[in-house]
Amino acid sequence: MTSTLAPITATSTTTLPVLDEAGRALLFTDARTANTFADTPVTDEELSAIWDLAKWPPTSANFQPLRVLYIRTPEARERLVGHMNDGNKEKTAAAPAVAVLAVDTRFHEHIPTVFPIRPEMQDVLEADETMRTGSAALNSSLQAGYFILAVRALGLAAGPMLGYDAAAIDADFFPDGRWRTSLVVNIGHPGENPWFPRLPRLDNEHTVTWA
Amino acid sequence: MTSTLAPITATSTTTLPVLDEAGRALLFTDARTANTFADTPVTDEELSAIWDLAKWPPTSANFQPLRVLYIRTPEARERLVGHMNDGNKEKTAAAPAVAVLAVDTRFHEHIPTVFPIRPEMQDVLEADETMRTGSAALNSSLQAGYFILAVRALGLAAGPMLGYDAAAIDADFFPDGRWRTSLVVNIGHPGENPWFPRLPRLDNEHTVTWA
Repeated sequence: MTSTLAPITATSTTTLPVLDEAGRALLFTDARTANTFADTPVTDEELSAIWDLAKWPPTSANFQPLRVLYIRTPEARERLVGHMNDGNKEKTAAAPAVAVLAVDTRFHEHIPTVFPIRPEMQDVLEADETMRTGSAALNSSLQAGYFILAVRALGLAAGPMLGYDAAAIDADFFPDGRWRTSLVVNIGHPGENPWFPRLPRLDNEHTVTWA
Repeated sequence: MTSTLAPITATSTTTLPVLDEAGRALLFTDARTANTFADTPVTDEELSAIWDLAKWPPTSANFQPLRVLYIRTPEARERLVGHMNDGNKEKTAAAPAVAVLAVDTRFHEHIPTVFPIRPEMQDVLEADETMRTGSAALNSSLQAGYFILAVRALGLAAGPMLGYDAAAIDADFFPDGRWRTSLVVNIGHPGENPWFPRLPRLDNEHTVTWA
């Protein structure tokens, strides 16, 4: 079984390129959370392409607990807007597309597929709720970070929001109880006056130490 | 006070570029978790540059609870290796640099600085431990996702690991109890045979739905 772990790329001089300034600006340094969106539609192909990037970066033991519900129809949008806090209703109604990111609470059922070198971890996690929910929380949030940057990689603006009635979204869209909403992300092209002044980032003296 | 929220960039035709194929490959589609590292050093400038990218993407209410301890000295490395699980000791000893990502459990003390439009949220979070720890967990993990992609943006390979004695790392490196370890990330240039065969990602039928 461990033969599946044999290294396959063999060179002692692997040199990776760096991301150019335009890429750094697009994903990190210039990118902003959009508060208004243009009427330009976001296509199903673009939404699929977001996930086709976001699904690749790492999760612990390759668990991949994050799930995505893309809201596309006016009827589904109206239901979702009804569950958002008042301050987020207008943005969510106006965004060309909305992704409801969710945790699959039974992600461990996929362990024999995603981590075939240790299929028995499915049973370990089934028996250990603390480990299971902790791993789901950490890994799904890592993946949400990847998702937000993947939206930006497609030339789209992301508007992540936590102000909503999570239980109401779950009951409405995930009635079997398996998926649980973790973050709602508006997606679209920036509209008029899309950016607020940027809020400050903490100084390195508060965030970075060396040992 | 709300005047600080006045939009500053005004155009109805904001068009963002897309990330080119090389950038997508570097951060998402071709990037891999490294299991061996070359001897090439990672400089303090590179480590600082990682954070100078990773600090920009969004957190809820701009809370930014993630902190970074960069391990650079042989003495600190030896202490850290002693706290890693056996399966991770060798990799952690060999990586040119290691980042210990941590949560600042008192991140809310910075709210008047990072979210000046609602400084009173500092007191709300001080009084509500459930909200405080939940927000810290979600936002620090989002930021850990940004951090991993920022390592890759610098042309470096990241090796995130969860197998360690978190309480021992905290007691050793964060003795005042304020920071709590959330993820250890080896950082360096890929070495010999750095990649295992890629583990599968879940099919879209299990991960993506539409409404």
